[in-house]
Amino acid sequence: MEHGPQLSRPLTQHHPYVPGKQPEISDGTVKLNTNENPYPPSPQIKNAILDELESLRLYPNSSSNDLRAGIAKLHRLKASQVIVGNGSDDLLNLCTRCFSDEKLKVGMLEPSYSLYEVVASLQGSSLIRIPFDDDAFSITPKSIVDSGANLFFITSPHAPSGREYSMDCFRQILSEFQGLVVIDEAYADFAGQNALSLLDDYPNLIITRTMSKSYSLAGLRVGYALSSPEIISILDQAREVYNVDRLAQAAALASLNDRNYFEETLALIVKERRKFAMVLDEWGWKSCPSGANFIFTRPIDFKGESGPEVASDLYDYLSSRNVLTRYFPQHELTSSYVRISIGNSRDMDILLERIIEWKTQEQP
Amino acid sequence: MEHGPQLSRPLTQHHPYVPGKQPEISDGTVKLNTNENPYPPSPQIKNAILDELESLRLYPNSSSNDLRAGIAKLHRLKASQVIVGNGSDDLLNLCTRCFSDEKLKVGMLEPSYSLYEVVASLQGSSLIRIPFDDDAFSITPKSIVDSGANLFFITSPHAPSGREYSMDCFRQILSEFQGLVVIDEAYADFAGQNALSLLDDYPNLIITRTMSKSYSLAGLRVGYALSSPEIISILDQAREVYNVDRLAQAAALASLNDRNYFEETLALIVKERRKFAMVLDEWGWKSCPSGANFIFTRPIDFKGESGPEVASDLYDYLSSRNVLTRYFPQHELTSSYVRISIGNSRDMDILLERIIEWKTQEQP
Repeated sequence: MEHGPQLSRPLTQHHPYVPGKQPEISDGTVKLNTNENPYPPSPQIKNAILDELESLRLYPNSSSNDLRAGIAKLHRLKASQVIVGNGSDDLLNLCTRCFSDEKLKVGMLEPSYSLYEVVASLQGSSLIRIPFDDDAFSITPKSIVDSGANLFFITSPHAPSGREYSMDCFRQILSEFQGLVVIDEAYADFAGQNALSLLDDYPNLIITRTMSKSYSLAGLRVGYALSSPEIISILDQAREVYNVDRLAQAAALASLNDRNYFEETLALIVKERRKFAMVLDEWGWKSCPSGANFIFTRPIDFKGESGPEVASDLYDYLSSRNVLTRYFPQHELTSSYVRISIGNSRDMDILLERIIEWKTQEQP
Repeated sequence: MEHGPQLSRPLTQHHPYVPGKQPEISDGTVKLNTNENPYPPSPQIKNAILDELESLRLYPNSSSNDLRAGIAKLHRLKASQVIVGNGSDDLLNLCTRCFSDEKLKVGMLEPSYSLYEVVASLQGSSLIRIPFDDDAFSITPKSIVDSGANLFFITSPHAPSGREYSMDCFRQILSEFQGLVVIDEAYADFAGQNALSLLDDYPNLIITRTMSKSYSLAGLRVGYALSSPEIISILDQAREVYNVDRLAQAAALASLNDRNYFEETLALIVKERRKFAMVLDEWGWKSCPSGANFIFTRPIDFKGESGPEVASDLYDYLSSRNVLTRYFPQHELTSSYVRISIGNSRDMDILLERIIEWKTQEQP
């Protein structure tokens, strides 16, 4: 590309997102690596999808109107406060597209969801990384307020730790920060609290949600954002007109409306999370209290040791025995931990068996 | 937004895309306004979709691997020459994201697909509009070669006229132009020729295709681009990692593989197009010979007159009788024409009846 076409300036230094490895899975694989829901989606989606097949020749509703109305009703908001995306990644992308550029900076907590860096980079925006002090992953509001960012991403509950934050913390940020705050609530359905009630008071708040986790629809790509009508109308201008297809709109709405199924599967996951957390506590493994569908824990090996080598060893041990978890070696606050998605009871039994093997047997 | 968060520079002057009106349709509506296919998608998609429902809890393949392999095989290319998008709009967006910015300009022929302007504007790029000389919609290669654009969009067959271009014309552009050429072949399956054979010779060529028209999948949002592996790998860096969902990947592949259904429905549309074109010729209405699933025609009224008022009058007359077509009043080369999508034989019979009513009866 030395002569001829030139790359856009952001692309000349862009580092694309690297998703968690998705190895080939077989019947025996226990897949606890990418925070997918162990239960299938609501059975109501089948008819919703079949009803749309003949209509697939026609363009979808360009504003996902029925789905937006359903989301608005669920959260007791106006439809003008809702925008639907092709996964919440689509919405995070729209946030940087609308509110960052080569001058307007993007902020994020480090470590958190690495996609924020990618969507900032695609805009050629400078990234302000606010490091956590320690593995409690506490937020100091002043560090965000004084960051100088025009747009700041906060994952809440935090990933990869699962930690929840208080609404007082967010109120302080939202009332003092001059920029927009995106609270990425991908995991909030699994938590004891969320930022929905702050929308009334703070027009500079955007909440993003995904149907990938709590609604078991990772394969369908539906996310949404909630904010003031003014902010939503701006995001809407940068949205691709037909960004959410007919099957996704129909299935997402059917899932959303099946509250019983949602509550039941959610309760099962929360129950497994509690059981697993108790076991880890008994073992003395340090874990963040989790408001998400995963647990971030610091393994202790048979010699009573912990640290990056121990965490990496457990991760490898489990992988080689077809139990997939996630390990983040790149950062000192994460490299002594593994992140384990909460599966169904069978998944968790197998996981525990394998961990017990690992922690009680001497390694070769 | 005077204080607090700032809009990104491109958004401060952005004009979003306005899609063709999609009025509420009833059973009696004859919908010939947005170039949708009158036939439902391949019946093979039903099982392909049902097979995916249980897996919807899991993320899709992030590179649409099976679908890419199917597309590559169909066009006798390498999989590394294929990228799949959430509709071809996703890919047009990636083109400007990777190859335009506030300095690198975007070119388009005027009039053509107005989305090119929108995706350029989202990048803050200047747009170079090369006007057509007249309503033959001929391309002068030199005007593109000398345009100074880094990225140039050509719709082929042209929209809204349906005109086809010779491959010699494209060869001349591709061999002399310093930038990238996107040949948007949304309608090429309905045409007698396409640019696929040029991919071998010109690494600065990107071809985009959609499954919305010839595969009856407008509601599913699947498009793809074909180019050199080098260009595809760049577009891939800016792509959202999970941009195409599981149902879309599975249904698109099943449609692609059902060649008989594809050929049969294509033949029906081409046959209806030929019949309709002959009627228009008999009436003396000027129409572009069309390589697309629509016809662009200049109506003549009962007084033997034509022009913007006549075209607008026919459009309104048909709309009020539940026959939806498209009218583009904004440009002098289009304002005397209406664009009519090719429907099934029943649609076309009703359309003809209504037009004959209009052209033979005196207006009130």
